[in-house]
Amino acid sequence: MSEMFTLLPAAEALEVLLRALPGEVRTETVPSADALGRVLAATLTAPSALPSFPRSTMDGYAVRSSDTFGASEALPAYLALAGEVPMGRPETTPIETGQAILIHTGGMLPPGADAVVMLEQTQPVAGETVEILRAVAPGENTVAVGEDMRAGGTLLEVGHRLRPQDVGGLMALGITMVPVATRPRVAILSSGDEVVAPELIPGPGQVRDVNTYTLAGVITQAGGVPVPKGIAPDDLQVLLATAETALVSTDALVLSAGSSVSIRDLTAKVIAALGSPGVLVHGLAIKPGKPTILAVCGGKPVIGLPGNPVGAMVVAGLILAPLLARLQGERRPTLRTRVTATLARNLASAPGREDYVPVRLAERDGRLWAEPVLGKSNLIYTLIKADGELCIPLDSGGLHEGEPVEVRLF
Amino acid sequence: MSEMFTLLPAAEALEVLLRALPGEVRTETVPSADALGRVLAATLTAPSALPSFPRSTMDGYAVRSSDTFGASEALPAYLALAGEVPMGRPETTPIETGQAILIHTGGMLPPGADAVVMLEQTQPVAGETVEILRAVAPGENTVAVGEDMRAGGTLLEVGHRLRPQDVGGLMALGITMVPVATRPRVAILSSGDEVVAPELIPGPGQVRDVNTYTLAGVITQAGGVPVPKGIAPDDLQVLLATAETALVSTDALVLSAGSSVSIRDLTAKVIAALGSPGVLVHGLAIKPGKPTILAVCGGKPVIGLPGNPVGAMVVAGLILAPLLARLQGERRPTLRTRVTATLARNLASAPGREDYVPVRLAERDGRLWAEPVLGKSNLIYTLIKADGELCIPLDSGGLHEGEPVEVRLF
Repeated sequence: MSEMFTLLPAAEALEVLLRALPGEVRTETVPSADALGRVLAATLTAPSALPSFPRSTMDGYAVRSSDTFGASEALPAYLALAGEVPMGRPETTPIETGQAILIHTGGMLPPGADAVVMLEQTQPVAGETVEILRAVAPGENTVAVGEDMRAGGTLLEVGHRLRPQDVGGLMALGITMVPVATRPRVAILSSGDEVVAPELIPGPGQVRDVNTYTLAGVITQAGGVPVPKGIAPDDLQVLLATAETALVSTDALVLSAGSSVSIRDLTAKVIAALGSPGVLVHGLAIKPGKPTILAVCGGKPVIGLPGNPVGAMVVAGLILAPLLARLQGERRPTLRTRVTATLARNLASAPGREDYVPVRLAERDGRLWAEPVLGKSNLIYTLIKADGELCIPLDSGGLHEGEPVEVRLF
Repeated sequence: MSEMFTLLPAAEALEVLLRALPGEVRTETVPSADALGRVLAATLTAPSALPSFPRSTMDGYAVRSSDTFGASEALPAYLALAGEVPMGRPETTPIETGQAILIHTGGMLPPGADAVVMLEQTQPVAGETVEILRAVAPGENTVAVGEDMRAGGTLLEVGHRLRPQDVGGLMALGITMVPVATRPRVAILSSGDEVVAPELIPGPGQVRDVNTYTLAGVITQAGGVPVPKGIAPDDLQVLLATAETALVSTDALVLSAGSSVSIRDLTAKVIAALGSPGVLVHGLAIKPGKPTILAVCGGKPVIGLPGNPVGAMVVAGLILAPLLARLQGERRPTLRTRVTATLARNLASAPGREDYVPVRLAERDGRLWAEPVLGKSNLIYTLIKADGELCIPLDSGGLHEGEPVEVRLF
């Protein structure tokens, strides 16, 4: 680890990286029907009011509310039945004083009507008369024009990631195309003389590539497009040439290399040669994941991750996922992946670093428990047995059984 | 609502539906690299041990640990430097008593070596001797064969939805193809004489189709494939013919129709005619979402949702998403979508039904607050302004400000 750099905790290191990035977000316009999970590139306003006509929220009778004032079961009001509102078409004849018109849920109030009496609070009398057993206030059992959304009102803010109801809300207003952030393309380059492709049978001393696939998954989940660039040998010239080519056609580059000192130095040299300002953070005050490099080269983020798959995954969650959120201009990106649970056993930690501990979640006695998954920090199956991770803060000596902890799900 | 049916709370209604479904899950085999988010159709075991050779977890010297016993800074052990382990290849010459071999993180221990002394705890002396400043125990700073996963060990259980690290773990063992549940194809049929496609300009009394798109989003997020079947008029024969055709080529059918009594009756008739056993649940004891029909027709689930987009979304979250989890054989499907928050204001409720209230989440004073989004229950923008929903239980009169509440994110 270079002596020039202080080890930073994850959140501070992320800040350093994000501050050094250009602010703009690349955008494109896509059909709203395909926009689920995309991040809005503009704040959208309503081109018209929703609903565009006054609607009934009940099955019942559209009335002038003043005709029902004082009505009760003991002293009903009697109104003349003047027809039925067809669904999907307007009743254009205005309702007169003393009249009621049959209306269905979602039907358009006829001119003159300002309320609906629920069917359950009426009684038909003879053929042409309706008994009203309860008074209704103006507007009762109706939705006014613009009550859901007024014309010109803000629908959704820039930076919002679209959910199912958001897409529905756009469609309700006829917004069938939306401006969204382009999905960031992220090149993934594994390096290591010992790393072979998963379909090969590793010889003695060789291991299969894991990080290309875990990182691709993290990138996909964060709304990006992973662009795997294969496995490069631990050779400065080859690695640099591959990395340069990869960065030209993508928005960001993630290098996953070995964790030995010599390979870390090699990775740092490659990244430094990719463009200015170059390396910003060299080493994180976290475990696992310490040998991480954060850089900006020619306006694009470059991350050097540890080769250890567990360290790589932890840093991907802490740095790569928020970076992708930023590249898409997303706001409030982290909310939906955290749960609070009760720690199921004591956890010791060394002060001066953040410890990230994989935990399994279990529901017992009506509570959610976080059970640490023990094992050396470079075993991928500790992450697979876990539902998420908790963080023991920088200056804490550990956490106690029974404490509430926040778990980032992964 | 038919008198023959008791209104059930959502969880009980879901149970009734799931119990009536055949148990089998349709499966297919896909490349592991494309399997993110898919549900495993078989429990997988390790074809070989991981790692397949003993590895160093540090930069340092591979040694026979017995050669270091008693070593300290005051009284170092002196070992003869016998070479360097290359990355990705084995050192085949066994290490002799009194020897040390330079090794990098991830390197393969040479025969005879059983531990690694960290570089920081050594000192080179002259050219060919290494000073060992600390004793190491057998196995120290190494990972043994099978320590991450033993050969034959269980990798992942059937019913597990694959995350990034799971895909990586499969690749680590050379499992490049996996059996997964086929994505369930779910037909969506909107009906209503008042409903028009979003690209059209609605006339007076008409509204744009919202539910096709919100439901498609929920289905996609739950791992299914939405199959939109357009908008049908409120006509028994047309609706029945469209529904029958839709169900033939899909695994499930969702009908979203109007909420008026006559339309609810029409939907019930259509569903009853689709096959046996037919309608199982007619009406839920929830608000919004009461006019819901759950059925199984010819072995396939059929859900009649309220036309009100808010009711449709609430029931989609409570019934459709768990149904899709079941069709994929998924276990523990709901864990990752719930957070605990503190209720920011009192909420009243009528006993005898579950009230689902949209809430916005806000972080203040280091706590997560759930702020109810007020508005009539059929306004789609109440859902859009919300981050999730909470449930006021069946027999509760309400919830109090300051109470912890569980929020289902949407």
